[in-house]
Amino acid sequence: MTGPRYPDLIAKLPSSVPFVGPEVQERQRGAPFLARLGANESVFGPSPFAVAAMQDAAGQCWQYADATNYDLIRAISEHMGVRPDNIIIGEGIDGLLGYLVRLLVAPGDPVVTSDGAYPTFNYHVVGFGGTLHKVPFHNDHEDIDALMAKAAEVEAKIVYLSNPDNPMGSWHSGAKIEKALDALPDGTLLLLDEAYIEFAPDGTAPTIDADDPRVIRMRTFSKAFGMAGARVGYGIGAPELIKSFDKVRNHFGMSRISQAGALAAYEDTAWLDEVIALVAEARDRIASIAKANGLSPLPSATNFVTVDCGQDGAFAKAVLTALIEQGVFVRMPFVSPGDRAIRISAGRPADLDIFETALPKALESARR
Amino acid sequence: MTGPRYPDLIAKLPSSVPFVGPEVQERQRGAPFLARLGANESVFGPSPFAVAAMQDAAGQCWQYADATNYDLIRAISEHMGVRPDNIIIGEGIDGLLGYLVRLLVAPGDPVVTSDGAYPTFNYHVVGFGGTLHKVPFHNDHEDIDALMAKAAEVEAKIVYLSNPDNPMGSWHSGAKIEKALDALPDGTLLLLDEAYIEFAPDGTAPTIDADDPRVIRMRTFSKAFGMAGARVGYGIGAPELIKSFDKVRNHFGMSRISQAGALAAYEDTAWLDEVIALVAEARDRIASIAKANGLSPLPSATNFVTVDCGQDGAFAKAVLTALIEQGVFVRMPFVSPGDRAIRISAGRPADLDIFETALPKALESARR
Repeated sequence: MTGPRYPDLIAKLPSSVPFVGPEVQERQRGAPFLARLGANESVFGPSPFAVAAMQDAAGQCWQYADATNYDLIRAISEHMGVRPDNIIIGEGIDGLLGYLVRLLVAPGDPVVTSDGAYPTFNYHVVGFGGTLHKVPFHNDHEDIDALMAKAAEVEAKIVYLSNPDNPMGSWHSGAKIEKALDALPDGTLLLLDEAYIEFAPDGTAPTIDADDPRVIRMRTFSKAFGMAGARVGYGIGAPELIKSFDKVRNHFGMSRISQAGALAAYEDTAWLDEVIALVAEARDRIASIAKANGLSPLPSATNFVTVDCGQDGAFAKAVLTALIEQGVFVRMPFVSPGDRAIRISAGRPADLDIFETALPKALESARR
Repeated sequence: MTGPRYPDLIAKLPSSVPFVGPEVQERQRGAPFLARLGANESVFGPSPFAVAAMQDAAGQCWQYADATNYDLIRAISEHMGVRPDNIIIGEGIDGLLGYLVRLLVAPGDPVVTSDGAYPTFNYHVVGFGGTLHKVPFHNDHEDIDALMAKAAEVEAKIVYLSNPDNPMGSWHSGAKIEKALDALPDGTLLLLDEAYIEFAPDGTAPTIDADDPRVIRMRTFSKAFGMAGARVGYGIGAPELIKSFDKVRNHFGMSRISQAGALAAYEDTAWLDEVIALVAEARDRIASIAKANGLSPLPSATNFVTVDCGQDGAFAKAVLTALIEQGVFVRMPFVSPGDRAIRISAGRPADLDIFETALPKALESARR
């Protein structure tokens, strides 16, 4: 009895996981986390109207979702002042990244990103046989000039830029990104990941014509809207590219419950404003806690704060491990020099109390 | 300003949709359907325990789902008597089909299915550049011997068999499928789609060792469990193949709410039994209505009945159109000779009352 035959590309791929989730870690440590501050989720939760809409929709989930995502696209279209054919909805930005890479990257095709930027994007590029070219962060920022130069040098199919960025929490002005478009090589798509844009200062989102064929921007309900587990993201771009997603996407792949929740969440701007304010308070508190322990918080335009532990990657890893042992789920940037830091997601006051208590012990443990 | 560059494979794909959903048709006709009997959804709905579990989970959807689907895999493992490493969970069978095709089918690779079988599988095969070889149905059944012979002839990577099948509703005994494994060529994977297996008579599911590397079987929460809009399917197969899904899947792609619902639904066997009984009653009623109108219902082991309209495809299409105009959402098999029939999903008595009233008028209209 012989098994199936895998194409070379697939046979050579690792069965890797971009991230190990907190539930896996909880089972390994045999106890639940006391504070869940590692995945940049919104512990403040979704809008109560979104929760109610999902509860109402639960009994109707015997029906497949509307494959065209009509209602949600209409709402986003009106709010953003773009046409419905500028919008694609997918199973989170992760799902959309997979589709986009499949649409553009054939085996061997070059793709440019920052070294240490979103691993799930890299996972998709590698998974479709693309060749990743990585540019270092510069002063804890994605280096736009270097990204564009590298994209020109290798004739990249896609150049990935997150703004604000993860995992450092830094950001560029929208004006800087608009200007960078002049340096974008012909035939390279700028993939602008704006997962954290709602938390950023005014002026962080560039003004880009939705019909500009050189850019796709992606946003999500996973962060400010507090619906990471519902899997709803969207992309804004030129109609030809947007329409192309219909060639490869899982048309009936959206949850009907998530569609209903996202629509209600999108309309509850008061809740969004409240979450943004709570996140700003939490960022300040995380920064204060870090400083009180002699550490250096980096400025953040996101719902997390990356804290420089002041030594090398091994030290930061030891701090991280000691936090996890105390029941505080946090993560750290994977790539040097970012790996001198740990990353703490915004939490409620009670979550941050736990972090505040655990951090000095973790530092003491790491210094030993 | 130039747009992105698409690989040849993608540039040549149609922006096609495997199915047009009922919501799209409702917007086109400017009125909601009175009876939703076209997509083999379970109008009886999910278990009340599943609804409650999803409602409870809605407020927690700020958390990403457990990427390992631990709890649901554990439950299926115990119920089916297979190991957790024999099970993969995905975003419906549709999602799993996409992953499986990507894992095995490189451009030009041969794949075998029945002409008129599940279009979404074909969509994925074409989407990854595979070459489809189609074998006709035989007496409204998938022709197992011909499928195996064609698989051997073309050295297929995958041979697709649904049992019971859609869209005809016919089925083979499990024993016949077990015997067919002897004719499965080396290096061909049998993809056994058991989406409708819960509705089928005892003995329809073959006994196949979950570790047999020649077979993957897929099941779903979309049909008997009434959760089509929640997107949960699962595959059972040998650990090497199951593990390979980790190379390509959207690890955090599951809805946390859907995970909770599926777990509760899976454990409510009383509701499952009730739905199966209600579906059997509905099948009988659809058959009676068909016969009362001079039509021939085909035997069904699914939650739908395919009704032979006794003339050609154009006539059946006219009947279908006239039903839709009266607010009855139904579909028909796309491929001759199946296209002499229309397909009606099991409904509640009130749904079937509407169908019963509409059918004679539709026939009258089609005969004019």
